[in-house]
Amino acid sequence: MGNKEKGSNAERELLKMFSASSWRAVRVAGSGIGEESPCDLIAGKGNQKFAIECKTSKDKKRYLNKSQINDFLVFSEIFGLEPLIAVRFNREGWFFINPKDFGIEDTGRLLAISLEDAKQKGKRFSEIFSQSEDFSDLIS
Amino acid sequence: MGNKEKGSNAERELLKMFSASSWRAVRVAGSGIGEESPCDLIAGKGNQKFAIECKTSKDKKRYLNKSQINDFLVFSEIFGLEPLIAVRFNREGWFFINPKDFGIEDTGRLLAISLEDAKQKGKRFSEIFSQSEDFSDLIS
Repeated sequence: MGNKEKGSNAERELLKMFSASSWRAVRVAGSGIGEESPCDLIAGKGNQKFAIECKTSKDKKRYLNKSQINDFLVFSEIFGLEPLIAVRFNREGWFFINPKDFGIEDTGRLLAISLEDAKQKGKRFSEIFSQSEDFSDLIS
Repeated sequence: MGNKEKGSNAERELLKMFSASSWRAVRVAGSGIGEESPCDLIAGKGNQKFAIECKTSKDKKRYLNKSQINDFLVFSEIFGLEPLIAVRFNREGWFFINPKDFGIEDTGRLLAISLEDAKQKGKRFSEIFSQSEDFSDLIS
């Protein structure tokens, strides 16, 4: 299975988790043929709206291309979405991480997070998405 | 060329128009395998953010499925996007129409707009997207 296919499978796995938690989530397909998508998923519920970049890792550290993440942050800003990077470490599951919690490596070209930091700084799906912090639907 | 392919070509044509006008636009790919996308494109620039449903028509009237458009409006609302329906009539080009300007037909099951009404109530690409109404970037 190629990297692209693995990435698509990971995105679909997350989509199912959102659907199961009554979030509205869709995949973002990029802006042209062959062009990289600026963001993998957008997910919303009540007043909460997230842009999500999905990554998987077989190792204990995940590296990201800084220019790609900058593009993702610009996209999030334009559409008023809160940016989150979702990393699935093998046998550890998904962590949802604020882009600011990534370290900078390789003289600024790469961002990185270790599994250890992901556990400490990241959140689990249920911590962010399962409990609705927005009860406005109930009282309006 | 099938309907699905025609639809994709129309979406790509619009994407190019947005890119040429320095808008950020992406395709929305739906939330699962085989599932209909709730929206074709999202486009943003400055403080303006639109959800766009793309349709083409060989005839002088375009019908839409009301339940599909309801889904589109819910999606737009969740993500804080202004909904617009883009209809390309053969040899007439694109019209950008407020969903409220469609008439209701077939005892509420369908929405429809004639080419004549599209010309009267709809806007051309350049009227909405070419002139930036947002100069905040210049003064901040």
